Amino acid sequence: MALINPKKELLKIMKLKNFFGGSPVKVGLPPGSLEVSADFKPEKAKVTVIEYGKDAFEEREVQSIEECFQSRKDTGVEWVNIDGLQDIELIKKLGENFDIHPLTLEDVVHTHQRPKTEDHEGYIYIVLRMLMLNSDKGINSEQVSLIFNKNVLISFQETSGDVFDLIRERLRNNKGRIRKEGTDYLAYSIIDAIVDHYFVILESLGERLAMLEDALMTDARQEMAQQIHQFKRQTIYLRRQVWPLRELISTLERNENKLIVKTTRPYLRDVYDHTVQVIDSIESFRDILSGMHDIYLSTISNKMNEVMKVLTIFAAIFIPLTFIAGIYGMNFANMPETKWHNGYYYALLSMFFTGIFILGILKWKKWI
Amino acid sequence: MALINPKKELLKIMKLKNFFGGSPVKVGLPPGSLEVSADFKPEKAKVTVIEYGKDAFEEREVQSIEECFQSRKDTGVEWVNIDGLQDIELIKKLGENFDIHPLTLEDVVHTHQRPKTEDHEGYIYIVLRMLMLNSDKGINSEQVSLIFNKNVLISFQETSGDVFDLIRERLRNNKGRIRKEGTDYLAYSIIDAIVDHYFVILESLGERLAMLEDALMTDARQEMAQQIHQFKRQTIYLRRQVWPLRELISTLERNENKLIVKTTRPYLRDVYDHTVQVIDSIESFRDILSGMHDIYLSTISNKMNEVMKVLTIFAAIFIPLTFIAGIYGMNFANMPETKWHNGYYYALLSMFFTGIFILGILKWKKWI
Amino acid sequence: MALINPKKELLKIMKLKNFFGGSPVKVGLPPGSLEVSADFKPEKAKVTVIEYGKDAFEEREVQSIEECFQSRKDTGVEWVNIDGLQDIELIKKLGENFDIHPLTLEDVVHTHQRPKTEDHEGYIYIVLRMLMLNSDKGINSEQVSLIFNKNVLISFQETSGDVFDLIRERLRNNKGRIRKEGTDYLAYSIIDAIVDHYFVILESLGERLAMLEDALMTDARQEMAQQIHQFKRQTIYLRRQVWPLRELISTLERNENKLIVKTTRPYLRDVYDHTVQVIDSIESFRDILSGMHDIYLSTISNKMNEVMKVLTIFAAIFIPLTFIAGIYGMNFANMPETKWHNGYYYALLSMFFTGIFILGILKWKKWI
Amino acid sequence: MALINPKKELLKIMKLKNFFGGSPVKVGLPPGSLEVSADFKPEKAKVTVIEYGKDAFEEREVQSIEECFQSRKDTGVEWVNIDGLQDIELIKKLGENFDIHPLTLEDVVHTHQRPKTEDHEGYIYIVLRMLMLNSDKGINSEQVSLIFNKNVLISFQETSGDVFDLIRERLRNNKGRIRKEGTDYLAYSIIDAIVDHYFVILESLGERLAMLEDALMTDARQEMAQQIHQFKRQTIYLRRQVWPLRELISTLERNENKLIVKTTRPYLRDVYDHTVQVIDSIESFRDILSGMHDIYLSTISNKMNEVMKVLTIFAAIFIPLTFIAGIYGMNFANMPETKWHNGYYYALLSMFFTGIFILGILKWKKWI
Amino acid sequence: MALINPKKELLKIMKLKNFFGGSPVKVGLPPGSLEVSADFKPEKAKVTVIEYGKDAFEEREVQSIEECFQSRKDTGVEWVNIDGLQDIELIKKLGENFDIHPLTLEDVVHTHQRPKTEDHEGYIYIVLRMLMLNSDKGINSEQVSLIFNKNVLISFQETSGDVFDLIRERLRNNKGRIRKEGTDYLAYSIIDAIVDHYFVILESLGERLAMLEDALMTDARQEMAQQIHQFKRQTIYLRRQVWPLRELISTLERNENKLIVKTTRPYLRDVYDHTVQVIDSIESFRDILSGMHDIYLSTISNKMNEVMKVLTIFAAIFIPLTFIAGIYGMNFANMPETKWHNGYYYALLSMFFTGIFILGILKWKKWI
Repeated sequence: MALINPKKELLKIMKLKNFFGGSPVKVGLPPGSLEVSADFKPEKAKVTVIEYGKDAFEEREVQSIEECFQSRKDTGVEWVNIDGLQDIELIKKLGENFDIHPLTLEDVVHTHQRPKTEDHEGYIYIVLRMLMLNSDKGINSEQVSLIFNKNVLISFQETSGDVFDLIRERLRNNKGRIRKEGTDYLAYSIIDAIVDHYFVILESLGERLAMLEDALMTDARQEMAQQIHQFKRQTIYLRRQVWPLRELISTLERNENKLIVKTTRPYLRDVYDHTVQVIDSIESFRDILSGMHDIYLSTISNKMNEVMKVLTIFAAIFIPLTFIAGIYGMNFANMPETKWHNGYYYALLSMFFTGIFILGILKWKKWI
Repeated sequence: MALINPKKELLKIMKLKNFFGGSPVKVGLPPGSLEVSADFKPEKAKVTVIEYGKDAFEEREVQSIEECFQSRKDTGVEWVNIDGLQDIELIKKLGENFDIHPLTLEDVVHTHQRPKTEDHEGYIYIVLRMLMLNSDKGINSEQVSLIFNKNVLISFQETSGDVFDLIRERLRNNKGRIRKEGTDYLAYSIIDAIVDHYFVILESLGERLAMLEDALMTDARQEMAQQIHQFKRQTIYLRRQVWPLRELISTLERNENKLIVKTTRPYLRDVYDHTVQVIDSIESFRDILSGMHDIYLSTISNKMNEVMKVLTIFAAIFIPLTFIAGIYGMNFANMPETKWHNGYYYALLSMFFTGIFILGILKWKKWI
Repeated sequence: MALINPKKELLKIMKLKNFFGGSPVKVGLPPGSLEVSADFKPEKAKVTVIEYGKDAFEEREVQSIEECFQSRKDTGVEWVNIDGLQDIELIKKLGENFDIHPLTLEDVVHTHQRPKTEDHEGYIYIVLRMLMLNSDKGINSEQVSLIFNKNVLISFQETSGDVFDLIRERLRNNKGRIRKEGTDYLAYSIIDAIVDHYFVILESLGERLAMLEDALMTDARQEMAQQIHQFKRQTIYLRRQVWPLRELISTLERNENKLIVKTTRPYLRDVYDHTVQVIDSIESFRDILSGMHDIYLSTISNKMNEVMKVLTIFAAIFIPLTFIAGIYGMNFANMPETKWHNGYYYALLSMFFTGIFILGILKWKKWI
Repeated sequence: MALINPKKELLKIMKLKNFFGGSPVKVGLPPGSLEVSADFKPEKAKVTVIEYGKDAFEEREVQSIEECFQSRKDTGVEWVNIDGLQDIELIKKLGENFDIHPLTLEDVVHTHQRPKTEDHEGYIYIVLRMLMLNSDKGINSEQVSLIFNKNVLISFQETSGDVFDLIRERLRNNKGRIRKEGTDYLAYSIIDAIVDHYFVILESLGERLAMLEDALMTDARQEMAQQIHQFKRQTIYLRRQVWPLRELISTLERNENKLIVKTTRPYLRDVYDHTVQVIDSIESFRDILSGMHDIYLSTISNKMNEVMKVLTIFAAIFIPLTFIAGIYGMNFANMPETKWHNGYYYALLSMFFTGIFILGILKWKKWI
Repeated sequence: MALINPKKELLKIMKLKNFFGGSPVKVGLPPGSLEVSADFKPEKAKVTVIEYGKDAFEEREVQSIEECFQSRKDTGVEWVNIDGLQDIELIKKLGENFDIHPLTLEDVVHTHQRPKTEDHEGYIYIVLRMLMLNSDKGINSEQVSLIFNKNVLISFQETSGDVFDLIRERLRNNKGRIRKEGTDYLAYSIIDAIVDHYFVILESLGERLAMLEDALMTDARQEMAQQIHQFKRQTIYLRRQVWPLRELISTLERNENKLIVKTTRPYLRDVYDHTVQVIDSIESFRDILSGMHDIYLSTISNKMNEVMKVLTIFAAIFIPLTFIAGIYGMNFANMPETKWHNGYYYALLSMFFTGIFILGILKWKKWI
């Protein structure tokens, strides 16, 4: 893998829309309103339903959202996954059917929420950010909202494509205990999958950081300072996502709501530990990046010192010699030395020894 | 949009009066006194009254403050908005009529309060800072005080012009639930409108920051350091306004006072989340600004390195050559080389090869 | 107002005796001992007594401290103010008469206490630091101790001259509610007057800071770095006084002691808010000062860059030209060009074009 | 001991696998799964059993894990130590036999856990990191897991080789009280041995730091900046291990679980104090390292100043002299001085005095 | 007093043994073991006993430790002071006689404890660090342990020589209340004497800091950076001692143990306040030291700027002039100017005006 191109890196970051303080609401709208910005084309959302129980499993894509209201069985869990948030009608219907607070729906639709969990009557709401590494080593970021009650978990994503394939796999093949547990365990599994993916991103970041560090040790080029800055920005971005996530999971673990059964809590504790580890890594990255900037600055200073030394050595040796040559270049009528037969050779010798003498002094002072 | 002119920027900041520790009281006056500084001309305040209920809405400008005492109806909410704080008589009358503590009135009049909320007998007092982007991309800052009891909310502003037009719109057109709720919801709406506007300011700041960052990547001019400093000052200013605001809203949400009904609390929680997001953005800005200063410094160092290199290359090549020319410029009678037929050409050749040799060394040492 | 002279500034700071860790006790003495350092001449303290009630007011200077023991009336408040702490006998008599703990007396006399409040049996003890701007814009700092019970408040100052004139004025003219309240309100008034004066100092500091900032934008002279450092020291000094003050007032407000009546608490809350604002300002100053140092460093770097550029331009143009001149200054017998009729003019032309060429390159590389 | 080779140092650090955010789980596996990464060859683990009581002691290596299930006696403690975590079958059997939660087993097997303790039904789980100095002064890091109930303590290590020899020694020779105590005291002894070894590492680090500091005082070479950076990274790494360890021990000490008997608590308090001391040392290292970087930068700046001074002195003296020589090297027909009999000597004298004069000025300005 | 010699300073610090993380225990020994390191020669400890009560006072040096067990009287306090910790036998006997926990004895003997207090059955254990200024202005550091029950206080020091002479004086002369109080007051007196001595050290540090600051304002020499670094290290060292001390005293003050009587608590509060003041001073020192480093760096930069300016001025003036001289030094046959009668004078004039012109430009650009 080649070194990182700073311009390209910059573009990757810029793809993280609204890095600089995206607004979590549409300014000026009444609270709880669902209108999205005008440049969002109201694309139809893709709705996938997975119904499962200890012994059952069914997976299908539905055309109209009403289908998944009807299909709710008495036993088992229904996981409704919605890709795309522009279909306001669909979301309103969901809201009415499941009795969701307008503020929750607003948070689902406006995609710059800070990770948080809210305890509402009849359901728990969780919003967090799913980060994925794209083919270009850039980070794709997407808001994921989870709403779950006793039987149904609805997950909202901005676009299709997610990190939940392994959960679906486990559901299909009845691997692990997931089919035996309720919606709370499913919610845990989704959060766990998202947090696990943070490690993938950290590892990719760590590898590129190590490469940059190695490069810094041998040379310090202008673009490296910019790369360090880009890494810092990525770290700042990650930090903003992960610190509230930690709070979220801790709140969830201590939640008294009976929607979260006792046996799920150790799992939440486990994912909490992972989040703390992500935070530890990010903080280490910050410290290392600041150390790398120090290295960068001192390498530049050292290079300048080297350049100055060369200049000084050349100047210190040749300027005096040129002066001597200048003396004997003067056109005075009476300059006895110039008449001597070996005057020229004496002059060359004196220059030679002057040069040696100056070199000696420089060496003695440990300049060369 | 052109790059930011640092002088102009500076002026914008200076408009934020008393950035450096404005005094929240008139030094030496007895506490609770309402006298304002002498250079405030006692302009008449503009008083607007909006009365509304589920089915009623009336909006009017009143000439004498007494009118709004009389007009209070049994049902519905009365919103008295006062633009201008120099009319001490008016404020005194309000204070007497609504039984407001003299310290509250003092805080209303002296416009350098830290955002806070106070729970008094019969009313809740809130003071915070409304920030608006003026036509020049500068920030206008104004103190807004809210006093509300069961039926009446009085809002005080320094000058006319505010960010509440969308609230009035919603009241007029009975949009959302605002007409169905009490004074607490109105207070929430006002705080929410102010906090929403912080995002507008953050976005403007973010855009200009991104532009400066781009410019820094290609060049580092003296004024950029000053712009970074200006941005830092703006960030410091914003921080000072938003951190206490967060505390304010949190206090309000946990307030046991029955003036704040239960259904309003989720909305306060919502605006609290927004405030935390504003703080997150500001802290990110700080980190990024400090990174930008690092970039700036390293760009300067790199430029100096470049300059030094050019100087050194010129000096390292031409000083020795000039020395050789100097040698043969000496006027010794006996200089055999000068007598040779091709001596001149040999000299030129030796200079040429010396130059090539030095260039080679510099290249070999990766200097060029 | 001229720019600040760093030497003079330094002296001002040095007047803040024992900036570096003054000892709050005389090392080695038994705790509670009142002996002061030997170089304090036991000057006689000046004792002023103000007695007041709702309708009464009397103000007088007393010669012997016993007078103010006798004069205590049943109703009203007695304010004994003592200027000068060297009169140990007087302080001992006070201590015996009012039953004051020896540790309290020790703290009163040794003038490097950290601001604090202590709840003793029968009285409340408060010690804090009064800062005054002297005629020279320097800060005078003095320790003020307050001891008050139900009827008497004793205030101790290091020297005469204080910021309480406006309180006396209000007492004399029965302005505000001060004559209607007890010793706790008087204590509050004194603290309030001291905190209010902090704003005066902050404003003076802020003005000078803004001047320095303006000067920095155009030039960076050596003494400015020193001024920034002086301002930092002042800020550090202020911080050390104000942070514990905040704690002090907060402790006082939450104090269950019945010496502090309920109606005084909102006033304490008010002065608490002011203290928090002072802290906010000081923290902003710190941030701005650190930004100013950054500006300073980058201005110096830029200036050096400019100097280097000029040097490089001169060297890059004239060193090659001098070399050419050197070539034709050589004394070879056979140098055909020197024999040409227009050789001299060709040489001048070639120098001219070489110069233009180098200039062109420098311009092309955006060096000039 | 020679100075540290930065390249070699770097390698040592890199041996700390996954310094950059190693993942504590295998991404995508169901929670509680024990599969390890494919490149782990399922080596057979080495199982050692020590059984002891007040008067008994037996130590043996077992071939099949079932042996240690049978051998459990009614009295005394059984310490099962397992070197190697690739033998999943063995760990599963242990899990079943001792009724261990699958999440615990997962944590045991995946070796990037953050130090923590967990209270499960029937046993306490502790995971922490054992650091050892290898022969090369590098740090070897290994995860140690402890699971203990009333009678059995199982310890898991990544490879053989540990810091517990002194514990075994004490068990064999019945030194101290360890044979008289239960599993909780054994767990404490293991933690204590690990923490004690941190001091060994700190001392080694401290020695090398002191050497680097000494070297910095006399010279500042490029590789020293890199060494400082390496030390910083080591310090960051240590910090990440020790801060959670402190929490771990504090949790353990306050644990209400009856598996930890009252008399063991003072010992836990003791090891807690040691951990705090380790943290203190690490924080001091950080401060000192940041100070060393400052020293490094200022040494570089000083060296550059020295170089510049030499250059300037040479240039300031010889450039004017060469100019004078140049004047008399001009070929004007009418240059009276050149005709004077002593003109040459006058010229030499004037050069000499010019040189002296310039030297004098430089001396006077304290340049030399 | 002359400026501080950095080498000598360094040595002073090094005398603070194990600055870098000294181990508080002997690694690998069973907890509670008393063996000291092998290079400690088991010198005999010096035991001094002071017995006192309201009216009694006796002071003697004892030869065998058993003497002080016998001499315990029913009334009054016995203070046993032990200088030297190598006499393990003696300490073991003390431990048995006074029923001291082995961990306490271990902490007494191993001299790198973090300041702490422990509440044991029958006695309170306090360990802290006594700092003394030696004749060389260096800091001597010694561990002091206090163990006291109702009647006896045992103090352990590493070597003879302490800061308790004033306490003994007060005991002898019955000055203050110390003879009337119990062991808790004696313990307080010892802590107070130690903390008071911290002020002595801070004052010495402050004085030397102020001197260095003054020196920095006029010049910036290489060794000053090293001195700043030494001061930083001293500050870091002091911090590590004082922060836990504050915790220690606070724990002691809030201790419910009846060994600490109610009247002693205000005195503990007093020494707590002093500790906070020491911390304040140390934190101020840190801030000021970091400011001094900034000053240092900017002074260096300014000096380099000055040097560069001189070089540039010389080069900018004389290089062009030398070039002109070089032109007329060329040997072309046809150079009309050289034939002019006044050509030489014109050339000199043109050089003169060129020089003036360049000087003018430099002046105009504010370079000189």
